[in-house]
Amino acid sequence: MKSFIEVSPDSDFPVQNLPYGVFSTCDNPSQRIGVAIGNLILDLSVISHLFNGPLLKSKQNVFKQSRLNDFLGLGFKVWHEARSTIQNLLSADTPTLRDDGELRKRCFVPQSSATMHLPVDIGDYTDFYSSLNHATNVGIMFRGKDNALMPNWKHIPVGYHGRASSVVVSGTAIRRPNGQTRPKDDEPPVFGPCKLMDFELEMAFLTGPGNELGNPIPISKAHEHIFGMVLMNDWSARDIQKWEYVPLGPFLGKNLGTSISPWVVTMEALMPFAVDNYVQDPQPFPYLQHDDKYSFDINLQVAIKPNDSSNATVVCRSNFRHMYWTMKQQLAHHTITGCNIRPGDLLASGTISGPKEDSYGSLLELSWKGTKSVELGDGKVRKFLQDGDEVIISGFCQGNGLKIGFGSCSGKLLPALPIA
Amino acid sequence: MKSFIEVSPDSDFPVQNLPYGVFSTCDNPSQRIGVAIGNLILDLSVISHLFNGPLLKSKQNVFKQSRLNDFLGLGFKVWHEARSTIQNLLSADTPTLRDDGELRKRCFVPQSSATMHLPVDIGDYTDFYSSLNHATNVGIMFRGKDNALMPNWKHIPVGYHGRASSVVVSGTAIRRPNGQTRPKDDEPPVFGPCKLMDFELEMAFLTGPGNELGNPIPISKAHEHIFGMVLMNDWSARDIQKWEYVPLGPFLGKNLGTSISPWVVTMEALMPFAVDNYVQDPQPFPYLQHDDKYSFDINLQVAIKPNDSSNATVVCRSNFRHMYWTMKQQLAHHTITGCNIRPGDLLASGTISGPKEDSYGSLLELSWKGTKSVELGDGKVRKFLQDGDEVIISGFCQGNGLKIGFGSCSGKLLPALPIA
Repeated sequence: MKSFIEVSPDSDFPVQNLPYGVFSTCDNPSQRIGVAIGNLILDLSVISHLFNGPLLKSKQNVFKQSRLNDFLGLGFKVWHEARSTIQNLLSADTPTLRDDGELRKRCFVPQSSATMHLPVDIGDYTDFYSSLNHATNVGIMFRGKDNALMPNWKHIPVGYHGRASSVVVSGTAIRRPNGQTRPKDDEPPVFGPCKLMDFELEMAFLTGPGNELGNPIPISKAHEHIFGMVLMNDWSARDIQKWEYVPLGPFLGKNLGTSISPWVVTMEALMPFAVDNYVQDPQPFPYLQHDDKYSFDINLQVAIKPNDSSNATVVCRSNFRHMYWTMKQQLAHHTITGCNIRPGDLLASGTISGPKEDSYGSLLELSWKGTKSVELGDGKVRKFLQDGDEVIISGFCQGNGLKIGFGSCSGKLLPALPIA
Repeated sequence: MKSFIEVSPDSDFPVQNLPYGVFSTCDNPSQRIGVAIGNLILDLSVISHLFNGPLLKSKQNVFKQSRLNDFLGLGFKVWHEARSTIQNLLSADTPTLRDDGELRKRCFVPQSSATMHLPVDIGDYTDFYSSLNHATNVGIMFRGKDNALMPNWKHIPVGYHGRASSVVVSGTAIRRPNGQTRPKDDEPPVFGPCKLMDFELEMAFLTGPGNELGNPIPISKAHEHIFGMVLMNDWSARDIQKWEYVPLGPFLGKNLGTSISPWVVTMEALMPFAVDNYVQDPQPFPYLQHDDKYSFDINLQVAIKPNDSSNATVVCRSNFRHMYWTMKQQLAHHTITGCNIRPGDLLASGTISGPKEDSYGSLLELSWKGTKSVELGDGKVRKFLQDGDEVIISGFCQGNGLKIGFGSCSGKLLPALPIA
């Protein structure tokens, strides 16, 4: 497949990718839906009239919205038709855009001149805890090697409800929170700025049509409700979390902000990189069983760029294939009690740690609870994040001459507000 | 204050109450905003042109919406002006509606002919755990008397993020979920219908304008963001919750459905029933301190009506004044790390148990973990809910010749779906 748009071989966004996002420009501040191709954005609001397939012909208005929710709600057959239409329009063999200079001028925007926004209005955000290495590492640190994994962990994709309002798009600064902590277990709590700010390397998927309350999505249909994926940084205030989380789980330690990458890479673009699922033992209950490959070989890395430095240093190299539970299993589990999913819900993986020490997806693990220093070069080290640090997550699939990338998910840590 | 509308002295909805809701009728299926008065609903979409106060004159369109979110976003001065306008329009001394038979015919709808809907699109739903008696009871059952309260409980209003999508309006049936449980701690988990279905007697408040991410709402301003209250039943699958909740908190045990009452009683209507706050020891941090009364004397009760019975039996009589933490404290705590609140977020109390055995707000406590039977009359007893049981929560304030009621929050339990 070749496009008339020139795409560099190291670009995240060849014509085989075509991730969806929402953008605006100085010229036109209205937020609209686009697809990334090379260094450009194809503005779907300008070419919505070209979606003339049998399913989309009467639904072209979904590309005139300021969020992807309506499009996601149309379902996987429509997603496929949309992708085919866009690939055809971008093909070197199709004259529609290629030979219409006036239309091309209106429908292509350089990414460098665009501001990205949240791709969807997130109805609900769920965070799972599906990396065996991460759960084991945290368990060892807090409960010792013999009780590292909770008894339920290999039976259910453990997860919890997160805060949807504080999910922000990459590039949004995050403020170090004030809050209650208890530095010493035998003394009263104290109030002040979080001292153990951390990132969490995660990925998340956005949902399609979803289900009615009371009617679970069977795992055999789960793929019909998984639209695509983003990178995610689940910023974490470790000391606040530690004091508050018993017995109802993380709350303020997490809801200070969660960053996602602006481009949603579709599952259709990712399928060439599907790999064998993690071998699960014990075998899960039938409602969690599927045979087809739904793990993905996605290279992930986290870099930290200190405020006073021009260099970002990679501190973690991981891979999405390390996940123990698949996204299908997460979705089937989430709805087994009847919980309803809506188009544009965000379901996240939990921290993605690999088996090696440099593949751990958080500073908590990389610094092993602050007992080791993480090197940033120039003599700089970190145990947890410092004010002004920018955290940059990136990810891509590569193989057979094809690169499917996610762009990046970044955010800078601002100092805490003075206490009133 | 006297209205030209006849209101029975035992009505929940005198002209001093005026709760807001969203309704539709057979004649007109569009969902619209109304205010309850006696047995009627005043349809605000029909009389939006009469909101001619200085603040609402240019914002009358908020009463043409199908949800209250836009109105809630306008803030407490606007809420006050709206209430004054409606009370004036309903006054026995005001001819505008009283003497306009044609307009009266269009703007009043009998409640008996209306279908109620969710009053707001809930952006995020948070559940606190703020009743000392409830937290103590549950703690004794699961950890023994000496470790009943967690060390953090009297320092922070413990809470967690709930599922917004599965919040439904009173009258919606709830399906008993299937899910994983582990009946015996030394045996593997099993899959099947929940065996320990329960209700939780709660109340919740809806938020006003809210705050930007990173900027906490100080407790001195918290009341500006608390619009009004509803009754709530936080349906709970105790056996599913018990197996899943460590370490990230309740998830599927709760997201099978949460019912709220359709009428939102404003804080302005409730202020005559403000009572002294619970005496807190230790004194909380300054960000959680306020001197003014913000606890409320609201009588609450829960009744169960079995499928094969025409009688509902009251199984719990409690009161909102038993809450240890106030709604202002909950809101200040929720935002102290910078978490942003949006108009129409739902923040719930947690189970409201009083000090007496018949004031416990859940069957878990009333049956003391299934060790005692709760009498329903006609020889019927319950430890947990049975299929077909309807749970009916009601609440009201009363005193000085005034009754401010909430109507009811009800829901019937359907049998579990057969396992595929």
